[in-house]
Amino acid sequence: MNKLKLGLPAGSLQNTTLEIFRKAGFNIQIGDRSYYPYIDDEEIECVLMRAQEIPRYVEEQVLDVGLTGKDWINETAADVKELTDLNYSKRGLRPVRLVLAVPNDSEINSVEDLEGKRIATELVESTRRYLKEKGVNASVSFSWGATEVKPPLLADAIAELTETGRSLKANQLRIIETILVSTPRIIMNRTSYGDPWKRKKVDRMVTLLKGALLAEQKVMLKMNVHSSNLDRVIELLPALRKPTISNLIADEWVAVESVVEEKKVRTLICELQEAGAEGILEFPMNKIIP
Amino acid sequence: MNKLKLGLPAGSLQNTTLEIFRKAGFNIQIGDRSYYPYIDDEEIECVLMRAQEIPRYVEEQVLDVGLTGKDWINETAADVKELTDLNYSKRGLRPVRLVLAVPNDSEINSVEDLEGKRIATELVESTRRYLKEKGVNASVSFSWGATEVKPPLLADAIAELTETGRSLKANQLRIIETILVSTPRIIMNRTSYGDPWKRKKVDRMVTLLKGALLAEQKVMLKMNVHSSNLDRVIELLPALRKPTISNLIADEWVAVESVVEEKKVRTLICELQEAGAEGILEFPMNKIIP
Amino acid sequence: MNKLKLGLPAGSLQNTTLEIFRKAGFNIQIGDRSYYPYIDDEEIECVLMRAQEIPRYVEEQVLDVGLTGKDWINETAADVKELTDLNYSKRGLRPVRLVLAVPNDSEINSVEDLEGKRIATELVESTRRYLKEKGVNASVSFSWGATEVKPPLLADAIAELTETGRSLKANQLRIIETILVSTPRIIMNRTSYGDPWKRKKVDRMVTLLKGALLAEQKVMLKMNVHSSNLDRVIELLPALRKPTISNLIADEWVAVESVVEEKKVRTLICELQEAGAEGILEFPMNKIIP
Amino acid sequence: MNKLKLGLPAGSLQNTTLEIFRKAGFNIQIGDRSYYPYIDDEEIECVLMRAQEIPRYVEEQVLDVGLTGKDWINETAADVKELTDLNYSKRGLRPVRLVLAVPNDSEINSVEDLEGKRIATELVESTRRYLKEKGVNASVSFSWGATEVKPPLLADAIAELTETGRSLKANQLRIIETILVSTPRIIMNRTSYGDPWKRKKVDRMVTLLKGALLAEQKVMLKMNVHSSNLDRVIELLPALRKPTISNLIADEWVAVESVVEEKKVRTLICELQEAGAEGILEFPMNKIIP
Amino acid sequence: MNKLKLGLPAGSLQNTTLEIFRKAGFNIQIGDRSYYPYIDDEEIECVLMRAQEIPRYVEEQVLDVGLTGKDWINETAADVKELTDLNYSKRGLRPVRLVLAVPNDSEINSVEDLEGKRIATELVESTRRYLKEKGVNASVSFSWGATEVKPPLLADAIAELTETGRSLKANQLRIIETILVSTPRIIMNRTSYGDPWKRKKVDRMVTLLKGALLAEQKVMLKMNVHSSNLDRVIELLPALRKPTISNLIADEWVAVESVVEEKKVRTLICELQEAGAEGILEFPMNKIIP
Amino acid sequence: MNKLKLGLPAGSLQNTTLEIFRKAGFNIQIGDRSYYPYIDDEEIECVLMRAQEIPRYVEEQVLDVGLTGKDWINETAADVKELTDLNYSKRGLRPVRLVLAVPNDSEINSVEDLEGKRIATELVESTRRYLKEKGVNASVSFSWGATEVKPPLLADAIAELTETGRSLKANQLRIIETILVSTPRIIMNRTSYGDPWKRKKVDRMVTLLKGALLAEQKVMLKMNVHSSNLDRVIELLPALRKPTISNLIADEWVAVESVVEEKKVRTLICELQEAGAEGILEFPMNKIIP
Repeated sequence: MNKLKLGLPAGSLQNTTLEIFRKAGFNIQIGDRSYYPYIDDEEIECVLMRAQEIPRYVEEQVLDVGLTGKDWINETAADVKELTDLNYSKRGLRPVRLVLAVPNDSEINSVEDLEGKRIATELVESTRRYLKEKGVNASVSFSWGATEVKPPLLADAIAELTETGRSLKANQLRIIETILVSTPRIIMNRTSYGDPWKRKKVDRMVTLLKGALLAEQKVMLKMNVHSSNLDRVIELLPALRKPTISNLIADEWVAVESVVEEKKVRTLICELQEAGAEGILEFPMNKIIP
Repeated sequence: MNKLKLGLPAGSLQNTTLEIFRKAGFNIQIGDRSYYPYIDDEEIECVLMRAQEIPRYVEEQVLDVGLTGKDWINETAADVKELTDLNYSKRGLRPVRLVLAVPNDSEINSVEDLEGKRIATELVESTRRYLKEKGVNASVSFSWGATEVKPPLLADAIAELTETGRSLKANQLRIIETILVSTPRIIMNRTSYGDPWKRKKVDRMVTLLKGALLAEQKVMLKMNVHSSNLDRVIELLPALRKPTISNLIADEWVAVESVVEEKKVRTLICELQEAGAEGILEFPMNKIIP
Repeated sequence: MNKLKLGLPAGSLQNTTLEIFRKAGFNIQIGDRSYYPYIDDEEIECVLMRAQEIPRYVEEQVLDVGLTGKDWINETAADVKELTDLNYSKRGLRPVRLVLAVPNDSEINSVEDLEGKRIATELVESTRRYLKEKGVNASVSFSWGATEVKPPLLADAIAELTETGRSLKANQLRIIETILVSTPRIIMNRTSYGDPWKRKKVDRMVTLLKGALLAEQKVMLKMNVHSSNLDRVIELLPALRKPTISNLIADEWVAVESVVEEKKVRTLICELQEAGAEGILEFPMNKIIP
Repeated sequence: MNKLKLGLPAGSLQNTTLEIFRKAGFNIQIGDRSYYPYIDDEEIECVLMRAQEIPRYVEEQVLDVGLTGKDWINETAADVKELTDLNYSKRGLRPVRLVLAVPNDSEINSVEDLEGKRIATELVESTRRYLKEKGVNASVSFSWGATEVKPPLLADAIAELTETGRSLKANQLRIIETILVSTPRIIMNRTSYGDPWKRKKVDRMVTLLKGALLAEQKVMLKMNVHSSNLDRVIELLPALRKPTISNLIADEWVAVESVVEEKKVRTLICELQEAGAEGILEFPMNKIIP
Repeated sequence: MNKLKLGLPAGSLQNTTLEIFRKAGFNIQIGDRSYYPYIDDEEIECVLMRAQEIPRYVEEQVLDVGLTGKDWINETAADVKELTDLNYSKRGLRPVRLVLAVPNDSEINSVEDLEGKRIATELVESTRRYLKEKGVNASVSFSWGATEVKPPLLADAIAELTETGRSLKANQLRIIETILVSTPRIIMNRTSYGDPWKRKKVDRMVTLLKGALLAEQKVMLKMNVHSSNLDRVIELLPALRKPTISNLIADEWVAVESVVEEKKVRTLICELQEAGAEGILEFPMNKIIP
Repeated sequence: MNKLKLGLPAGSLQNTTLEIFRKAGFNIQIGDRSYYPYIDDEEIECVLMRAQEIPRYVEEQVLDVGLTGKDWINETAADVKELTDLNYSKRGLRPVRLVLAVPNDSEINSVEDLEGKRIATELVESTRRYLKEKGVNASVSFSWGATEVKPPLLADAIAELTETGRSLKANQLRIIETILVSTPRIIMNRTSYGDPWKRKKVDRMVTLLKGALLAEQKVMLKMNVHSSNLDRVIELLPALRKPTISNLIADEWVAVESVVEEKKVRTLICELQEAGAEGILEFPMNKIIP
C-alpha cells in the first residue's frame, strides 16, 4: 500500500497543529512520550519531532512531507518545495520573528554597528547569511539556549526567535533589526512532490487544512426578514457568496442565510437589525471549501 | 480616535468573562502577569483589575465602563449607571450571596441576636448598612481573608460571600440571613454614559454579550417531516419564533427548523418523534439576537 | 415524586461520561470531593462511585440504573439487564481489554502453559472463570495494584486491564491472551426495568445519549450547486437520509444540505468540488436522532 | 551469598520510612516507578509494595522481613513474628486507628446498635472479628475506597482507618468506637526468624533503626560551668547517663556535656542558666545506642 | 490552667517561622486549611492569621503575644510592646522595605515631587504619615493588590513592600524613597506583659528563639593540635568564648573546640591548618544560649 | 578589587552543586530566571550556564574557573587545567556514562558492527574521536534531543549520556559499549591558574568543597567506656585519626570520640557494644579538613 510519511512539530506548535488537523478531519492520538502518534488514516504515517529537524528529514526523503516554520527551513537551507503558508494567527499564534537584540544601554543601534562584535544565536546560518548580505563582519556563535541572558558578558548581541518580545524586554534587551518573519509551512521533497499519488494526497490534505483555518475566521448568520426589507438586508451581506433564501411558514417572511467574516459581525448585526432583520442566529463552522 | 476604557475583573470571574466576550466576537489576549490585555478592537482599551476596585475607577472616570459584581457596586456605593445584568448561570456560575453566618452551635439565630456582637467581614459597608436598616447595633470590623475561621475566638459572626455555602459548612458555620444576592453587571459613569459615541459603543457590546449568553441556553433543531404530519410537529414547536420550512427532494417531505430551549429538548425530541418527525438534528449556536 | 437512582463511574470514564451527558442535555455538577453530584433533572438522583461497585449496587436495587464497563459486569457476575453498549471510541477511548501477560523472557507462551503457575490480578473471578473454561489449573490471587511489577518474583503471570498495552510493555511484559474486551454499558436491575415510569425515563435518556454519540461521528455539509450539476452531486451524498434542497437568490443555483460521516468528508469534499459543488460548508452537531 | 529480602511500604509511610533508614545508615534510592529500590547493603534486597500485602508475602516467605502497620498484620491474620514497634510519632505521624463511624444524625451510638446493620470497610476481617467478639451480627462488606461517602445510602456505618478524624468529620460522620490502634512494626516469618544469619542481620537493623528514632527525641547539650557551680548544674542533668566533664583552658571552668530529652530543653536551658551554666550549645544527633 | 494565646503569621513568613520554632523546641503541626495549629506545649494556644491583623488582635487582647512584621505594627499604629527583633536574614529572608516607586520615565524624582499626585498602596496609614512628616500633600488611596501595575494610568506613584525590588523592576518602576525597613517582631499587649506568668513564658520563648537563630550563624570547630602549636592556634580562635581543650590518647596532642562565625570559617580553616591544627571538624548546632 | 569569575552548571547538577557550596560555606542565592546568582563572597562573581558551555568559556578566559562534567570537557576538547574530581556519588548522583546503544533487536553487537551505519548523538566530537580510535567509519550526526526515539527509522545507533540506563531500556535500546565515564570537575584556564591570587582563592575553595564532601561520608561517634574496656574499644576505632579521650565524672569511665566512615557504623556500633562501649552517640558534621 502507498504510504505518506508526515513529520509534525513537537513543542510550541504541537497543540495548535493537532487541533487544526482534527478540524480538517484527521484524528491524531499521542501517547505518553510517544513520538510516533496514531493517525486515523491508513495511508499516512506520522512522526513527531523538533521543528528544527523536519526540513532536513524531508530533504533526505526520510519524510515525504512536513509541517514546520519558515525560520527552520531558512536556517537549514534545505532543498524542499514549500506548498502553502498556514495562517495560524486567528488561533492566537502570531508569526515568530528572528530579531537582532542588544542590551538596552548598548551603543549598538543598527546592523552596521555589529561590525567586529560577538553574536550568540540558535540560528547561526540565518544570522550569518543576513550579516553577509548587509556586508557586516561579526563573530556568530551557536548558543544552547538561555541566549537572552548571554549579553553583555558572553555576547554583544543576540539573534533570537520571539513572538511578543516580552522575554527580550524582561532581560533588558532592545530589538535593533528583524532578520526574518516566520509562519508555519507545508513542505515536500522534490521526489515525493513528483510522485502523483503522494502529490494528490498532500494536495487534498492542504485543501482540508485551509478549509479548517478559513472556518475559524467566518461564521454563518441566519435571520428572518420580511419580504419588504429583503433588498436592504441582502445589500448588507457580502456580495461574493450568494445568500440562501427560503420561505417561512408565515407568508410574508423569508429566511436568509449568509457566511460572513467573524470580526465584521460586531457591527454587521446591528446594521442588519436596523435594516429589518429579526431573530438573527450565528453558527460556528468546521470547514469552508470556497 | 475615540477610545473606550473598559475594566474587566481579574480572579474568579475572569475566565468566564473572557469566554463570553470571545463568543460575542471580542478576542482578548492576556500575557503573563499583564494587567493591560490586548483586545482586537482598536476603539477599546482593556484593564484587568480586582472586581472590588472597578466601581471606584468607573466612578472616578479612570474607566468609562466596567464589568463587576453587584456585591462590590453595593459595597463601594459608587455613583454609577448599571446597564445590564449578565446571566452567567448557564455557565455553572451561580449568583454569589453575601450572608451572615454563625457557628453551628451558636445561640445566635437571627439578625436581631447580633445586637452587641462582633462581626468580621470583607464587606464592611454593606454589612453596616444592612444592620442599620434592621436597627441592630454591632461591631463590624474588616477581615483580610480566612474570615470563616475567625469565629468563635475572633468574631461572633461573619458576613461572607458564598456561592455554594460549602466552605461555610466545612468550617461548621450556619447561615442565618442573606444580605444581598450578586450577579455580574455592566456599569458606566454618568459622563461616559452621556457621551453619544461611548454610549452607542457600549450598547452594541451589551447586545452582543447578551446574544452570546442567550445562545448558550438554546439550540437549533432541524428535522424532516412528511407533509401529512406537519401540523402536529409545528404545534410542538415554540410559537414565538416562526419555524423555517423548506422542501426536500422527496416530494411529500419538508424540512423544519426551529430554535428551542436547550433544557426542553430532553422531552421535546421524543414528542417530535412521536409526532412523525424524522432525522432530528441539533446544532449549537454562537449568538442569538432576537 | 418518582425518582430514578443513577450510578455513574468515578475515575477514568468520569470526564468523558459527564461530557456525553452534557451533550445529551443533562448538566451534572460535581463539587470538590462530592460523590453525590447535582443533575439538572429533578427526577434523577446521581451517585458517583467506582465502576467496580456499580453492577453490585444496581443488582441490589440500591441504584435503578448504572453506567459501567463490561469488565466489571462480568467480574461481579451481577444479575442485571444490559440496555445498550455506548460507543465512546470516537472520543479517544478505546475499549479496555483484560489480558494475560508474562515477562518478555518467560517460557510461558499460551494459556495452557499457565498450568500450576501463580497469577496476580485485580479481576480474580473473570480470570478464574476463563482458566476453568480452558481447563487450566492455576493459582489466581488478588493484587492491590502495581500488578505489572509483580512478575517474576511475586507472580508468574498477571491478568491486567489495558487500553494501549503501553504500561505492560514498559514493564517488559508480553501479552499472551485476551480474556475479554470491555466497553461502557447502561445496566438496570430487573425490578426497575419492570417499572413503566423508570423504564420510559431510562429509554429516553438512552435515546439522547446515543444521539449525542452519533452526532460526534457525523457532520452537516451545505453547498451551492448549479442546477445543471445537481444530479451528479446528489449521487455522491448518502442515500439513506434525504438531502435538503432550497433555492438560492441566483436563479440557476440551489443549496444542498446533507449529513455525512465525518471520516468520509476527507475524500467526499474533493469529489463534490469536482462534481460542481461550490462554497461547501461543514457544521458540527450536538445530537442526531435518526 | 546470604541475602535478606526486605519489604518496605509504598504510600503514606514511604517517605518517613526511607528517612529513618537513612539515619540508621541505610541509603535507599528509588527510581521513577521502580518497585525494587537500590539499598547500599549488598546483603539486603528491597521490595516496595502496598502495606496491605507485606504481611502475606512475609508469611509466604517471599520476603524474610517487612515493615508494615499493625492494622494490616491484624487484617490479614498472617502468621508472622512481630519484632518491634517503631515509634514514628516524633516525626509527625500519629498512630492510625481503625474506627467505627456513623452519620452525625444516625441513631446508632454504640457497637450494640450495629446489630443487623450494613457496614462498609476496607478491613473486612478485622471488623468481623471485632463484631464477633462483641456478639454483634452485622453485614460487613468490602469497600474499594471512598468509604466515607457511602453512608447513609450505601451503608449504615463504616469501619475506616483514620489518623486525625478530619476526613470523617468533613463527611459528617461521628466515631462511635475504636477497633484497633496501629503503629509500624517489623515482622519476620518463622523460618527466617529461625535462621541465625538472618536473625542477626535483622536484630542489628532493628538496633540501628531504634537508635535513629531515639536520636530524634534527644539532643546533646554542652555548656561551660565555673567549678563553684558544677554541683548545681550536674543535679539538673538526667541521672541515668553520666555527663562528660572536661577542663577548659581557663582554670576554674569546666565543660559539661549531657544528652537530654529535646522536649525538656525548653525549661531546662533556663534553669541551667540560673544555676550558672554559660555558653550553652545544643547539638543534633543521628543515632543513640544506649 | 494558665494559657498563652500566640498569633503567628500565615503566608510568606509562615514556613520560616515554624522552622525557627521547631529549632527552638516547639513543634507546631498545621492541618489542611487549619488556622488553629497544634503546638506541643499545653500552656500555649496558637492562631495562624494574616500578619496584617496580628497587631490589632494583640492590642485588643484577643491574643497575648504575636509575631508580625514592623511594617504592619507601624501601619496599624497598634498600642503594643515590642519585645524583640528577630533576625531571619541568615535564612534567606532579607528585611522587607516599604518604598515609594514611580515609572522609570516619570518626572517624579523625590518625595517633594509627589505634591498633588495620586499614590496607590496597601499601607495607606504608613504612607500618609510619612508624607505628612515631609510636608507633602498627595492623594493616597488603598489598593487591593497588583499595585505595581497601576502606574501610570491608575496612579502616579505607589508605596509598595519589597524584598529584592525585582517585581518593581520587572514592572518598569524605579524606587525614589524608602519609607521604612521592616523585620519580624515579637509583640505583647500591655496587660499580658504585666502578667508575671505570661511575661516569664514569653521571655523563655524569646530566649529559645534567639538561641535557635544564633545557632544558624555559628558552627562548632574541633581540631587536634600538637602542644607545641597550641598557642598559635588559640590565638586564632575568638577571644570571647573560651575554647575547650582536652588531651588526646597520643601524648603530645590536645583536642581544641571552639564556636566560630560560620562565615569566617572559609578563611579561618586555612589559617588554622597553617598554624598546625589537624583533623579539623565542623559541626552544626541547634541552639546557642550565650 | 580582585574578582574570580566562577561558572556553575545549570540543570541536573545545579541543586547538588549549590548544596555542596553551602556546606562548604558559600551561600548562593538564585532569583527567578536569574543566571547571575548572588554569592556571599565579594571576591567571587558567579554565572550559571549549561554544563556544555562551561569548558569553552573557561578556555576563552570569560571565566576563571568552572565546575562541569568530564563529558563536556572531553566533547569540547577545551585546553583547560583540571584541578580536582568531585565525588558527588554519596549524594545519590552516580557518574554519567556516554554509551553506544542500539535497538534490542538490532544485529549490531559491537563497535565494529557500526561500520557504515548512522549514529545520532548530542556529543558528536567525543563519538567521532572514539570511532576513529577504533578504526570504524560511520556517519555521526547531531541530535537535538529525544535521541533515544530515533532508531530504527532515523538512526541505526545512538551515543547517549545515561546515569541509570532506564530511559534507554524504556525505549527498547541495548547498550553495546561505554565511550566514557564522567564525573564533575573543577577546571581553570592556564592564565588564571598562573595568577597567584586566583590560584590561592581556588585552592581554598577546593579545600572547603572537598571538606564538605568528605563530611558527608563520615560521622563522629562518641561513647562512654569503662577504663577496663578501653583498649578493646580503641582497637576497633580507625587507626589513622587519634580518638579523643576525656574523663567522666564517674571515676572509672572515660569518654571516647572518634570519626568513622558512615557506612561502617552499621557493623561497628554492635562491635563497640560488645567491646563494652555504652551510650554510643552519632553526630553529623559539616566539614572535615584532614
